[in-house]
Formats: sequence, structure tokens, C-alpha cells
Amino acid sequence: SRLILLQSVRKLEKEFGNKLGNERSNAYPAVTRGSCIYKYFPTADERLLEYDIDKVVYEQRSQFQKILIVHSRSLGNLLLLDDLQNLSESDLIYTETLMQRGKENYQGKEIVILGGGDGALLHELLKEEPKYIVMIEIDELVMKAASKYLRSCCGDVLDTLKGDNYEIVVDDCVNVLNTYIQQGKSFDYIFGDLTDIPISSNPQGETWDFIRSILSLSMEVLKPEGKYMTHGNGASCPDSLKMFERQLTSLKVPVEFSKCKAFVPSFMEDWVFYQIWKKNY
Amino acid sequence: SRLILLQSVRKLEKEFGNKLGNERSNAYPAVTRGSCIYKYFPTADERLLEYDIDKVVYEQRSQFQKILIVHSRSLGNLLLLDDLQNLSESDLIYTETLMQRGKENYQGKEIVILGGGDGALLHELLKEEPKYIVMIEIDELVMKAASKYLRSCCGDVLDTLKGDNYEIVVDDCVNVLNTYIQQGKSFDYIFGDLTDIPISSNPQGETWDFIRSILSLSMEVLKPEGKYMTHGNGASCPDSLKMFERQLTSLKVPVEFSKCKAFVPSFMEDWVFYQIWKKNY
Repeated sequence: SRLILLQSVRKLEKEFGNKLGNERSNAYPAVTRGSCIYKYFPTADERLLEYDIDKVVYEQRSQFQKILIVHSRSLGNLLLLDDLQNLSESDLIYTETLMQRGKENYQGKEIVILGGGDGALLHELLKEEPKYIVMIEIDELVMKAASKYLRSCCGDVLDTLKGDNYEIVVDDCVNVLNTYIQQGKSFDYIFGDLTDIPISSNPQGETWDFIRSILSLSMEVLKPEGKYMTHGNGASCPDSLKMFERQLTSLKVPVEFSKCKAFVPSFMEDWVFYQIWKKNY
Repeated sequence: SRLILLQSVRKLEKEFGNKLGNERSNAYPAVTRGSCIYKYFPTADERLLEYDIDKVVYEQRSQFQKILIVHSRSLGNLLLLDDLQNLSESDLIYTETLMQRGKENYQGKEIVILGGGDGALLHELLKEEPKYIVMIEIDELVMKAASKYLRSCCGDVLDTLKGDNYEIVVDDCVNVLNTYIQQGKSFDYIFGDLTDIPISSNPQGETWDFIRSILSLSMEVLKPEGKYMTHGNGASCPDSLKMFERQLTSLKVPVEFSKCKAFVPSFMEDWVFYQIWKKNY
């Protein structure tokens, strides 16, 4: 299907450039349109990346989002939610950085995961011998798809909604957090594994409202010495990260935070992760 | 300069898709044409990547090639030779995998570097206390540029053509290898840090002739128990790698080889490196 090799295009471009005395002409690598497989996804700062995707593995629109799992030659299976890179089989570093493996001690701890439908975080946290984990995911279809096609990430944790020391609640996490507050229940760790921080010019709109609301509710459910762990955005979006940090400093409960970054293979860029705790602890 | 945010394009696309009942329509992230800074470079398998390049740092055409150093927000300064990603300030892993740091012992050894004009390999090898290193680079201008703009990679090794235990010969390495053969000189390690293995449908053409010729000459100059270390190509190009391996098995001197791969940040993909030695050693 490839009519002209890039090599030939480059050669032609060079000859044209030479003839015209242009030192800076550049042939663009081809953009493939109209293929049954869509291969172009942006970085957080909207740069164009072409992935080596060779197969659509799963495609379904759930009540909440478009679920797409494709196969990449270099990454393995890759989950996209509403066309946003979510997790690939090469992204253990994502989960390990989110949970700060080796830096946090989860043994005997009570943990809530907000979101986390791909099951990778639940799977990795269970290896750390926690007392109990509740995962609250709204979209059962994501879990079904992940359990089948991202099994190297989630193991068998999504096969059942209840294990020895964990349970998966299929619900809106705002409802569940409100119930916890009413019941006076609290946790050692809360993971925000929900929507990314949006790239926007000001911290308004429903996603920002959602993020602020989740943070506030979580602080109420968190034990005094507990920690809220979450992903931020690409390191290439400093303004968006700063905006998130400003939301943190304006919460009703005063908090402090640390952050760190890791290169996430399926994002093809550095990603920033946050650890947030209540001040004076 | 950005007229419509990708977010708005995506929203529009979704609305169109919904109206038309099309589940699979996709808006392409914009390709920026006509900018003074060219930001698109391909992977080894010719996929399109947009880099976060924000500045041209150096641009010169030498007698041998086009030398371009640009600044990337995530990679630091990045050297491009004839528009091919060569080395960035984030690519220590490239040099360390090429030299198999921690797996090979360079102490007291005599070493030749063929090419290596960016100086990174020379800089890293000198830390391993070798007896003597000769680096043979044809393009003095690359070294001048690297010494100034890739200083975090090459340190001060390119400031002078002769150090305590190394020298840089500005010449065609084929000439120098032939002289070594005539003089009966031999080395413990030879590094092939020259042109990449080409992506082509058959192992013909001047680059393949050059690669075969360099390999043959190097085997003659290598001590019986010596090793030839070189980079291959992207892991995404198995055919090209196989073609290179077939050249290895058809050399006059029978050789064996091992290989390994590493993700090179500025290539945005896994790269394959070879270690080659004469059979029966």
C-alpha cells in the first residue's frame, strides 16, 4: 500500500532543496488517512504522535465513554478511553509511580481507589499486603474489557467483584465518598485514578469542578495521617500542573504535597504524579 | 498563533460523528507547516513524531553533512545529522547500552572509536580507565558544535585532539583502519559509531557496501579475543536487523554476536545494539 518510500521522498526533497538553494526545506513523513486503524494520538501538549498500532482488539461505546483497545507492536495492548491513551501493557512504571512503590508502605492499610477501571493499580496494591481495598469504578464494561485484554496488567483481580481483601463497587465515586462521610468511615490511602487534569486556560468547567469536589470529599474521608495519591498531567504542560497546584492550596482543608515524574511508554512523555496530605501531619 | 484548540476540534468531531452515526470518525491533531522550526522526525519504521522543539541552537552544512542542533523542552539539546536524530542530552542510555556499561571491562584496554563525533562515547569510555582510545571522526565541524552545545554529553574531551590517554584523528576511518592493518596494529575494542543500518528492501547500495567494508576491516584490526560494538536500528525494523545479521554471518572471518535493546529518549523508541566477536573466542 506504500507507494513511495520516505527515503525516496527525502532524496527528492534534497535535490529540490539543492536546486533551489534552500537549506531548510523538509519533506514531512506521510500522514496515513482513511485507514481502518487510527494511529495518531497527541501528547498532553497536543503534539502529534504516530503509534505502531497494527490491530483493533476491542471497541465498544459504554454508557459513559468510548472504550478502545488496540495492539501496538512496541507497547502490547493499549487501552484508550474517549481516544485518550490510558494504559498499555508496557506501563507498569505508571502504576508504580502513582503508588510510589518502595516509598510508601501499604501493609495492613485501608485503601480506596477512585476509578482505576483497568485494574492495574488494584493488582499491584494487593501485592503489598494491605488490610482492605475498595475500588469504586463507574464503568463495568471497562473492567470486562481490561480483564480480558489487559490481563498482564490486572491479573485476575477483575474476574470477581469481591476478593479476600478487596471489593469493587460499581458506582459513581462521589456517591460512595458521601456515604463514607455520613458513616464516619476513613482510610489510610485514597487514590485518584480518574480523569486527567484538563489542559485549559483557566480552572473552570465541569472537569475542574469534578476534580475540586473529589479532592474535598477525599480529604474528609482521609485519616489525619493519610495520603491522597493521584496522577497530574504531562510534564510538558507546566501551566496545567500549576493550575492544579493552585486548586490544592485553596482547598478548605489545608494540604501539602510532593510530586515526581516518570516517562510513561504509552504516553511517549514524562508524566507528573502527586502525593497530597493534610498539613501538620 | 493557535486558532482552534485541539479540544474544540475534538468536540466538533464528536458532534459530527454523533449526528452522522459514525462511531469511528477521528480528528487529526494539527500538522504545523511553514514554521521556522521543523519539529517532525520519523521513527526507524517511518512513523511521524512531533518533537517539543522550541529553538534552533546551531545550523551548519559541513563538507559531509547537514549539522543541526535544536533544543527540545523534554530532551535538552538534540543533534540531528542530515535530519536524522543522533544524540540528545537525555540519551546517556544510548551510550551506556552501546558500550554495555557494567558488562564489559575497559580497564587497561586499547580502543578504537569509528565516528562518534558527538564525543559522548569517548567521554563515557574515558571514565572506565582504558589504556588508550583512538577516535576517528571525519567531520571536525560536528565535534566543534557538540563541544559547545552538547557539553553535558561530551564534557571537555572534544576541546583538544589529544589527551593523556586518547587522541582524535580527523580522517576517513577506512584510511586509518587500512594503515593499522599494514602496521599490524590491533585493538581490544572497536566501536562502530557511524551511519545507521539502512532500512532497505535488499542489502545493496553504497551504505551496505560501507557497512560490510567497515566490518571486514575491523575484524582484521581486532585482537582475537576483541569485540566490535555497534548500534543497529529500531526494534520496529526486524527485517533491517535480520539483513544486518545476515551480513555478519557472511563475513570472511566467522563471527558470533549478541544483541540487546534500550529505549532511547530522543528516538522515542527501542533501539538494538550489537556486540560482535570472532568465533572460537
